[in-house]
Amino acid sequence: MKNLGYYNGEIGLIEDMRIPVSDRVCWFGDGVYDAAMCANYTIFALDEHIDRFYKSAEAIRIKVPISKKELNNLLCSLVKKLDSPQQLVYWQVTRASSAERTHAFDADQKANLWITLRKDSIDDIYKKLKLITVEDTRYFHCNIKTLNLLPNVLAMQKAKEAGCDEAVFCRGRQVTECSHSNIHILKNKQFKTAPTDNLILPGVARAHLIKNCRALGIPVIEQPFTIDEMMNADEIIISNCGLFCAGVSHINNCQAGSKDKETLLALQDMSIKEFYAATGINKAAAQLNKE
Amino acid sequence: MKNLGYYNGEIGLIEDMRIPVSDRVCWFGDGVYDAAMCANYTIFALDEHIDRFYKSAEAIRIKVPISKKELNNLLCSLVKKLDSPQQLVYWQVTRASSAERTHAFDADQKANLWITLRKDSIDDIYKKLKLITVEDTRYFHCNIKTLNLLPNVLAMQKAKEAGCDEAVFCRGRQVTECSHSNIHILKNKQFKTAPTDNLILPGVARAHLIKNCRALGIPVIEQPFTIDEMMNADEIIISNCGLFCAGVSHINNCQAGSKDKETLLALQDMSIKEFYAATGINKAAAQLNKE
Repeated sequence: MKNLGYYNGEIGLIEDMRIPVSDRVCWFGDGVYDAAMCANYTIFALDEHIDRFYKSAEAIRIKVPISKKELNNLLCSLVKKLDSPQQLVYWQVTRASSAERTHAFDADQKANLWITLRKDSIDDIYKKLKLITVEDTRYFHCNIKTLNLLPNVLAMQKAKEAGCDEAVFCRGRQVTECSHSNIHILKNKQFKTAPTDNLILPGVARAHLIKNCRALGIPVIEQPFTIDEMMNADEIIISNCGLFCAGVSHINNCQAGSKDKETLLALQDMSIKEFYAATGINKAAAQLNKE
Repeated sequence: MKNLGYYNGEIGLIEDMRIPVSDRVCWFGDGVYDAAMCANYTIFALDEHIDRFYKSAEAIRIKVPISKKELNNLLCSLVKKLDSPQQLVYWQVTRASSAERTHAFDADQKANLWITLRKDSIDDIYKKLKLITVEDTRYFHCNIKTLNLLPNVLAMQKAKEAGCDEAVFCRGRQVTECSHSNIHILKNKQFKTAPTDNLILPGVARAHLIKNCRALGIPVIEQPFTIDEMMNADEIIISNCGLFCAGVSHINNCQAGSKDKETLLALQDMSIKEFYAATGINKAAAQLNKE
């Protein structure tokens, strides 16, 4: 198949699939999701993504209808149905379907499980990114990967229209994260990243970056940082599940970062090697699927 | 028909209707909605609801695919298809459908128009309500009626499980609104209600209440009020499109309000009379559909 949609056991092409209008996603965005990259038909860091998915679901009291092990098996079997060995694996759970639209729910209703698989590959992390800053007006549940993503959508659109790659959310002067990435800085060979409270998503790529910093002897400071600290950082680093560790060249049209290439490159190379080792691909194979 | 679902011109029973998985509502809750009560096949305050709907859509840069006049005509013709003259008329617009899931969007893509009609009638406003307070952890776009409603869902569920009728959102000590209603207080024959900033929805029922206060010579103060002011108010009033002006007896299990029955009753009677006059029904007809 060229892509794959799954809804409660039903399988089809994404462009053909339909879901009931009574799914609470339609009225409330009432669900959570997660996503991971797949190469060589092997899903990268799958257990970590599945763990976070169940935590997100639990945080808003949705019971995922199958076990972690069953979800793992299901995803690993479905990716084999695609023509492409390199994919973005996306899944979500929505609270329930019900003919009535009521805010309150029946806690015993069965949740709906969704999956989509599309041909995709990891982004070129060695390409420098341009960012804009936007005021972080989101809710205080940013640690939960919910489908309430309107502020993220509008922030990313603003970035795109400014010719940029990502939007950096700031609560006043405090940097939190980006529209669909975490953000970190390097200063004096130290790695600084916002703590995993309710203002940021605990990124899987972020966790890997921290682990890699420690392996390379780079001190890690998990503390909030300000816009000024970011503008004066030696490097600014963006991470998400498809972009493990990318550097930044501009923020709001001003030059930023790009002052500690050596440390950034060490982290980037380590990220890529980890992905290659875990999925059993090499650079040539990773490029193959890129066009 | 016993109920009606509409999606871009397609019409069917809500329980049978399906929508494309590629609608951005499925991934981002990327849409806005509005709703109004209908009695005697006449939709109450429809122009006001439609005006707010277009404002919501504009605020998140969605272009409603038809004009206000066309939407008005469409809703007024569809309500006639239902067996019941008393209905809840609900409609929403979602940004677009697209095979790819990307936060940023194509501003020229055609939006999707949804409508649902269900048998329903206004709630008994003379019944006293019980409330709980919850921390307002929502985003700072509460003036826009979006489909990003998870915090509202969770707050209302908490109220339901506490045996209550509504949850009052509070930012620290400041009362904002409820999970799906506005909230107001009467103190010393004055009506106090939060101003229409980004922390509350500009309720149509709220606007009618303010107008009715003025007609009755009750001074209106549009200023934020605190939890303490609410607990010490003479009356606490809840309003939404199906519950025009209801009094409160308890908040967090403590007795509250119910100390200025005369003013509350004058406002309630005026609300109901306005609804009867606009829709051409009487009390007996309003009750008829209640069971």
